[in-house]
Amino acid sequence: MEHLSFLDLVRDDLERVETLLRERSPGQHEAISVAVDHLVNGGGKRIRPTLVLLSAHLCEADVDKAIFAAAAVELLHTATLIHDDLIDGSLMRRGAQTLNAHWSPGATVLTGDYVFAHAAHLASRSGSTLLMQCFSETLMTICNGEIHQMFNGHRSQTSREKYERRIYAKTASLISMAAQAGAILAQVEKEKWEALKIYGEQLGLAFQIVDDVLDFTADETELGKPVGGDLRQGLVTLPTLLFLENNPAHPTVRRTLNGKPSEETVKAAIQAILNSSAIERALEAARGHVDQAKSMLEGFLDSSYHTALLDLADFTVRRRF
Amino acid sequence: MEHLSFLDLVRDDLERVETLLRERSPGQHEAISVAVDHLVNGGGKRIRPTLVLLSAHLCEADVDKAIFAAAAVELLHTATLIHDDLIDGSLMRRGAQTLNAHWSPGATVLTGDYVFAHAAHLASRSGSTLLMQCFSETLMTICNGEIHQMFNGHRSQTSREKYERRIYAKTASLISMAAQAGAILAQVEKEKWEALKIYGEQLGLAFQIVDDVLDFTADETELGKPVGGDLRQGLVTLPTLLFLENNPAHPTVRRTLNGKPSEETVKAAIQAILNSSAIERALEAARGHVDQAKSMLEGFLDSSYHTALLDLADFTVRRRF
Repeated sequence: MEHLSFLDLVRDDLERVETLLRERSPGQHEAISVAVDHLVNGGGKRIRPTLVLLSAHLCEADVDKAIFAAAAVELLHTATLIHDDLIDGSLMRRGAQTLNAHWSPGATVLTGDYVFAHAAHLASRSGSTLLMQCFSETLMTICNGEIHQMFNGHRSQTSREKYERRIYAKTASLISMAAQAGAILAQVEKEKWEALKIYGEQLGLAFQIVDDVLDFTADETELGKPVGGDLRQGLVTLPTLLFLENNPAHPTVRRTLNGKPSEETVKAAIQAILNSSAIERALEAARGHVDQAKSMLEGFLDSSYHTALLDLADFTVRRRF
Repeated sequence: MEHLSFLDLVRDDLERVETLLRERSPGQHEAISVAVDHLVNGGGKRIRPTLVLLSAHLCEADVDKAIFAAAAVELLHTATLIHDDLIDGSLMRRGAQTLNAHWSPGATVLTGDYVFAHAAHLASRSGSTLLMQCFSETLMTICNGEIHQMFNGHRSQTSREKYERRIYAKTASLISMAAQAGAILAQVEKEKWEALKIYGEQLGLAFQIVDDVLDFTADETELGKPVGGDLRQGLVTLPTLLFLENNPAHPTVRRTLNGKPSEETVKAAIQAILNSSAIERALEAARGHVDQAKSMLEGFLDSSYHTALLDLADFTVRRRF
């Protein structure tokens, strides 16, 4: 695996974050501990806590506080995944069984709730009510986005604008929150806070576009779940959207999106999209967001943390998993 | 309906709380607003926000901050009810349909999550990270308690100690949090904070015991759901527990608890418990907790708020709904 130099700067901090992620409350039921350990050890890339820590160092925030914020952001992300997998009926994530694959819906809902509460508790230990406000606003944005998607449907009828709004709520809002954490904790001037906010938003949009591309192009072993999952569920992501712009009536892709396709139809639809220019054009869009993200860091002094945030942005579109 | 004089003192504050409960975020999906309005208007007694406000006045806390805390506690309670009703498959609450009665499980989970986030946001606007910490710890306690109940079963095998632990987690922890809010916001000395904490715990235990008694004795119209619901689900509450102490092998009650009883069996079991001394002995236990709660207020100066907190405690065991 590629050596990620931007991780080196925060390796010690990340170990402290890992310790917090594994912390157990007195009386915590063993089932929660097993579930959280399973999820936390599940091979997440720790992009969000890394962002919190780099942002904190860049802004010269109190790193002890940032450790709490970093753990909080990772657990908030974990909690949303628990409920998402339940709602989508997903049985695999990152190559491992999801919680709902072997637990009842009730136990899965409650474990997600517990992890939300633990995330909020960690955030409160950062000592910043402003951070808590942004943190809870972000969760509102995420849930609101999912409810929009659920009530307004996501099949075939979509647009570039709707797609961006959806992935902003789903992914970019929390990545932006992570990027802002240092600015909030250090109470830097408004301009720098705003710059980190936009850096995070653009990075988050790129991150999700690449995830959506990888859902077509990745190796199943590396992806940890079957490819083409979005298409199979009728979810139009950027590659499909760009493909349909050029082939609005493509029969196989349309049939796949219109519900209950055979496995053969799904495979043919994936192949049609892979053979088109849509993948490359989606990656081009992601690179555009990364460039915008990087440009937001121009107002910060040169430092190893500054370089690391630029590198992290580049990694987002280079990654294969 | 009885005039509750302890409400008079905080009537204006409660109106401000109501306004916050109905606040909508920019972009909030209409479905969330409809759901939250339905729940918030659902005839809750507002015991928890009233406690926050009386505690704030007693401790001379900043009432503007307490308004946020009061709304946060009520919404946290609302969010837990949304998920509980889904998990239990309950179709009615307070005489109205539950959310899960007409929404998909996914939409119900997400709406609950959104309301948790909104509650956390309101709590953060109180400006106290200590309050946020207690707030999130309380949610951890509630979820942990429910997970214990779910994994360890709740049928027949129970004890007074296990019952108290369960109702502490389910109800008393949040009522205690509400009672402490003023002490936390005003940063009063440790002894007074501790006294309000125990006041709330004892009040909360009494409150849940009375709820469990009303599940046997109430008028169905006032209760807003069928009586005997706990027994029907195999849930042993204090009246049943006390009944079984005197009649350990009562065939009808045992048959009801051992699963899938006929409606006739349930009705006979309810009648057997109503005809015994168990109801009166359960109420006696509740009155014991109320006396303990009231004794915790002895160290506070006499004031109308002090009197109101004593009255509220008495009301808890007097209420019929």
